[in-house]
Amino acid sequence: MIVQERFFTFTKDEIPFTTESGYIFDEITVAYETYGKLNKNGDNAILVLHALSGDHHAAGLYSPIDKKPGWWDPLIGPGKPLDSNKYYIICSNVLGGCRGTTGPSSINPKTGKPYAADFPVINIRDMVRLQKILLAYLGVKRLVLVIGGSMGGMQALEWAVTYPDFVDSAVVIAATERLSPLAIAYNYVAIKAITGDLNWNNGNYYNNKKSPDIGLSLARMVGTITYKSDMLFKKRFGRNRTNDGSMFQVESYLNYHGVSFLKRFDANSYLYLLQAMNLHDISTPYGSLNRAIERIRARLLLVGIETDLLYFPKDLKEFVQRVNSLGGNAKYSEISTLQGHDSFLIDFDKLGPIIKGFLEVDYVEYQKNVSTM
Amino acid sequence: MIVQERFFTFTKDEIPFTTESGYIFDEITVAYETYGKLNKNGDNAILVLHALSGDHHAAGLYSPIDKKPGWWDPLIGPGKPLDSNKYYIICSNVLGGCRGTTGPSSINPKTGKPYAADFPVINIRDMVRLQKILLAYLGVKRLVLVIGGSMGGMQALEWAVTYPDFVDSAVVIAATERLSPLAIAYNYVAIKAITGDLNWNNGNYYNNKKSPDIGLSLARMVGTITYKSDMLFKKRFGRNRTNDGSMFQVESYLNYHGVSFLKRFDANSYLYLLQAMNLHDISTPYGSLNRAIERIRARLLLVGIETDLLYFPKDLKEFVQRVNSLGGNAKYSEISTLQGHDSFLIDFDKLGPIIKGFLEVDYVEYQKNVSTM
Repeated sequence: MIVQERFFTFTKDEIPFTTESGYIFDEITVAYETYGKLNKNGDNAILVLHALSGDHHAAGLYSPIDKKPGWWDPLIGPGKPLDSNKYYIICSNVLGGCRGTTGPSSINPKTGKPYAADFPVINIRDMVRLQKILLAYLGVKRLVLVIGGSMGGMQALEWAVTYPDFVDSAVVIAATERLSPLAIAYNYVAIKAITGDLNWNNGNYYNNKKSPDIGLSLARMVGTITYKSDMLFKKRFGRNRTNDGSMFQVESYLNYHGVSFLKRFDANSYLYLLQAMNLHDISTPYGSLNRAIERIRARLLLVGIETDLLYFPKDLKEFVQRVNSLGGNAKYSEISTLQGHDSFLIDFDKLGPIIKGFLEVDYVEYQKNVSTM
Repeated sequence: MIVQERFFTFTKDEIPFTTESGYIFDEITVAYETYGKLNKNGDNAILVLHALSGDHHAAGLYSPIDKKPGWWDPLIGPGKPLDSNKYYIICSNVLGGCRGTTGPSSINPKTGKPYAADFPVINIRDMVRLQKILLAYLGVKRLVLVIGGSMGGMQALEWAVTYPDFVDSAVVIAATERLSPLAIAYNYVAIKAITGDLNWNNGNYYNNKKSPDIGLSLARMVGTITYKSDMLFKKRFGRNRTNDGSMFQVESYLNYHGVSFLKRFDANSYLYLLQAMNLHDISTPYGSLNRAIERIRARLLLVGIETDLLYFPKDLKEFVQRVNSLGGNAKYSEISTLQGHDSFLIDFDKLGPIIKGFLEVDYVEYQKNVSTM
């Protein structure tokens, strides 16, 4: 499947967009991709939401010689679990990102310089509200499904809360209704690693010779550990050394992830997205978690990952029970894996059938029940 | 109980001490404390081993107006689980430490300057071999018990392997026979945080205006998370903010631990001790884990902590099974707690009876069995 990166730009005169923190953007660009065709009613759409370090290139190749398909390619395309023959599938880079959508590294039209630390505080709801504007532009009238893992899962659930009448169903993988203090703690170390790097310079490093590479790679290393699992590390690395004997293999692995991240991510973006995750709580605008949940009309599927060090399956299960005890329609499914949190980016053979089952089989059941009610 | 800090210094002419990495110290000082009296046979001694950031001040107060007792004070003293009326209890600062025993911040007699990065690579066995020298100096002929948690637990187990005929029993709390790749990974982030701090200056910061405070506090923050638990953070902090609203409470907590650590720990010491932990593997000198285990003649008790994010109870249980399958005498006990890894420094009401039971009740049983064999 050959796909194309697209951009949608609008000014505040065309569409006013204010963050929850009260900032009005003069202009916003959204980078996105679509797979499949929108039907005439505009109601065969699926929105795919990426995680912290992901982007809008969810599936396909950019050219016949491109060798690196999008990050969810095994799940998206003709005949795949998210079937582009049937559905119109959209994925966009989040607000605050650094892969094409307006973020801290973008030029601020007010100053002609990168936003840097002048970028406003954003949260997960801001990301979702910007996605809604993109969908309107694309002519989408209704979503069959919103789906994502980790930060993408937070957005999926937020979609079901913020726009209850727009969403048929939501799949929330390895994410919770609000970030746990343990995850906030890990994020805090990452934030301090970046802001403690002298080259961060209060966010103003875009025109400097040095950028906060050490801080960003440390932040990524902390993240990488929490995205994996003890069992995976034991199986893959054990206590083995690198060929030259200078390091443990697990150290070399972390180092590689820390350093290679520098090529594809902006430190300020990372800070703003971590903050957005920390602030994430679906209940905030409604005063209580139950009131937020009571807004949801979509069918929900929460997918926990057995070995997740960051978003514990028990927390997802508790949320499902709470939704159902409030009269909602939530299911729980668990992936048995050594991969840890990152399973949703790896275990496609396990995740595919879960998604397909929920999207199609369950939907038929659901329609039957609704029609006989 | 009023106690006194003591120092034992020896030169290489008096007692040659070579690290496993092949370095010969011209002179070594060991800081230590003792509680209770050694009997005439020299065989009523207990060796207490401290963890990464601990020291030799395990119990008592330094004066009647001292308000901060030693770190295991509820467990050590007259009538306490480690009863100083009955036993002669010793605790010393580890080799490589920064609380009185020779370490990277000590003056190298060869140069008249701090060792810094010239300090040799050390491991857990080196610590244990130095403790053996201290015990000989103190007249100890045999240990009733070696006991410690985390890095202290590694030393306790190493004692049972290195000196099988000197140790009656060992209590190994929240530690394993070798460091897991997950723990190595966390330690790697800490190591990179310190060595990535420009003020670390390849370890030469002792006479500089700035020391690697940001790196060391980051390292301590990563550690602090892994010493606690998800449930503890949920219960204690949840998503609550600090009074001024500027931070999550869990962030403020981590920050406090990171910053306050700077007052009491040396960055180079931290690096050397992390490396010693990473290198820890009781099997190294013997070629296989089974051969190392087969050396052990002490009764073993491994104490797992239910919520430990770093040393999983399942790993301790597996080790106990392996010891027993090889004809050894190992028991397992688990502390049910929200405290995580740090439980052994907090849950004295739970740990006390476990230690007392193993030390006294089990010992009587053991003696009976031995005498009827």
